[in-house]
Amino acid sequence: MSLLITGSIALDSVKTPVEEHRELLGGSASYAAVAASFFTPVNLVGIVGSDFPKPYLDLYRKHGINLDGLQTAAGKTFRWHGEYEWDLNKRRTLSVALNVFETFHPTLPDGYRRTPYVFLANISPQLQMHVLAQMNAPRFIVADTMDLWIETQREPLRELMGKVHCIVLNDSEARELTKETSLVKAGRKILKWGPKYVVVKKGEHGCLLFAENFFFSAPAYPLEDIHDPTGAGDCFAGAFTGYLAREGMIDHDRLRKAVIYGSVLASFNVEAFSLGRLQTLTPQDIDERYQIFKLMSHFEFG
Amino acid sequence: MSLLITGSIALDSVKTPVEEHRELLGGSASYAAVAASFFTPVNLVGIVGSDFPKPYLDLYRKHGINLDGLQTAAGKTFRWHGEYEWDLNKRRTLSVALNVFETFHPTLPDGYRRTPYVFLANISPQLQMHVLAQMNAPRFIVADTMDLWIETQREPLRELMGKVHCIVLNDSEARELTKETSLVKAGRKILKWGPKYVVVKKGEHGCLLFAENFFFSAPAYPLEDIHDPTGAGDCFAGAFTGYLAREGMIDHDRLRKAVIYGSVLASFNVEAFSLGRLQTLTPQDIDERYQIFKLMSHFEFG
Repeated sequence: MSLLITGSIALDSVKTPVEEHRELLGGSASYAAVAASFFTPVNLVGIVGSDFPKPYLDLYRKHGINLDGLQTAAGKTFRWHGEYEWDLNKRRTLSVALNVFETFHPTLPDGYRRTPYVFLANISPQLQMHVLAQMNAPRFIVADTMDLWIETQREPLRELMGKVHCIVLNDSEARELTKETSLVKAGRKILKWGPKYVVVKKGEHGCLLFAENFFFSAPAYPLEDIHDPTGAGDCFAGAFTGYLAREGMIDHDRLRKAVIYGSVLASFNVEAFSLGRLQTLTPQDIDERYQIFKLMSHFEFG
Repeated sequence: MSLLITGSIALDSVKTPVEEHRELLGGSASYAAVAASFFTPVNLVGIVGSDFPKPYLDLYRKHGINLDGLQTAAGKTFRWHGEYEWDLNKRRTLSVALNVFETFHPTLPDGYRRTPYVFLANISPQLQMHVLAQMNAPRFIVADTMDLWIETQREPLRELMGKVHCIVLNDSEARELTKETSLVKAGRKILKWGPKYVVVKKGEHGCLLFAENFFFSAPAYPLEDIHDPTGAGDCFAGAFTGYLAREGMIDHDRLRKAVIYGSVLASFNVEAFSLGRLQTLTPQDIDERYQIFKLMSHFEFG
């Protein structure tokens, strides 16, 4: 089944202790859409400026991503400039220029409104709800968020959580949102606010999925050398939702596998800057790493 | 097969934000031996003072622990007094009185020297090597350590690592020992120093097992309420080694299960102060929680 993804589309300039690259394709929707495209057809909703490089449009098309909902506005594309510290665990934003993103208030193409699966990648909860309001009875809605919205848009975020089936956020965000140190307590508290499923991403510690009577824990892939952590969480959530859309059904077995496929795509993505690794990725690469996840987390083999 | 365990035996006074208990049975060898006793016969090596409460000797005996190597010296038993902060993640030591432990320099009973499995629970690396030097060709040796020895006894610790098959340490200790932020890099670096297996305990994030061509990751059991974290790592390592001793063989499948049994025993231990929970624990409780670990980490069921 197809999957609608909305979020940011950006030109990223990224500096790590080892490398620096400018104006690469980035943004939460770009990472999520390309990761999801390995599993299911994607309808993208986003905005770019008139300066958006054609090769990046070709990249989306190469992945079969439907661009009917991609608006091109007069002006410049959203830009983000960030730098990672020596161990790649902390990053600081050097500059953000919203540019055309400030005017983003999408009207969905008619052909998008009945898309059965929806991933609201990280943008403001108001924009996420604006897109959701135009959908016709989607079957399964996943939303991501970030510290900025937890700090500045707590009420709209709580409202959003009442409207989605699954929320994805990272460990520090889960703690900040709930004021709980224990991730188990944080996860269970968020469940009470509405979503049926809560996924907490823990970076090098893997991720957790909480539901009322269900808990699943996935490890992170043990990479020694990470080139660029940007977009790992977006790839996780894109592949997680993309796999569920492909299956067309939600149950505990599929949710477990969705978490693993999300972890697989995230682990590939950090091996190169921007979407570099995902552009060369094959279904066989995905299958192989999925099997490695099995070997590193199963302890009984039937 | 039987398992020799040496380490500290203490009377602990522990304060959490909710409760406070005084002079409870504690020490690395106590926790490890009781946890291991659920799997295999244990030969304990340790020292207590003449004030050591008889009920604690009875507790060891109830678990079938061989006390031929338990020395009773004139004087007081080792005492530790610690306090946990509100979230139980940090603890501070309020006082330590080594007492008879200062004179601990054990001579092993003859009947102990051929014990095939050995767990050197947390004591100084010199003492660990002193015990090991009296053993007759043990098949498998596991050692634990702590930040104190990493800071003050780095050379003896490196020497010890050349003599054991497996080292168990927690995440902050692995980072401190190797000066690596990435636990994957830290684990691989320690492997180069001698041990064939390295287990990194990560508290609420579970634990990792590294070998040259093998990696395994186990989640932590998602407990919402922890009563007393003291001894969780010792219980992990005791059960880990105890399970391997019971099996009498080391291979990847058994190492995976050993990590899970270690995690199971550690998760029970934090449910009560001292060894309270392990005293009422049944093999059925262990089996049930083992199955829950399977449900929370397997993603394919054959």
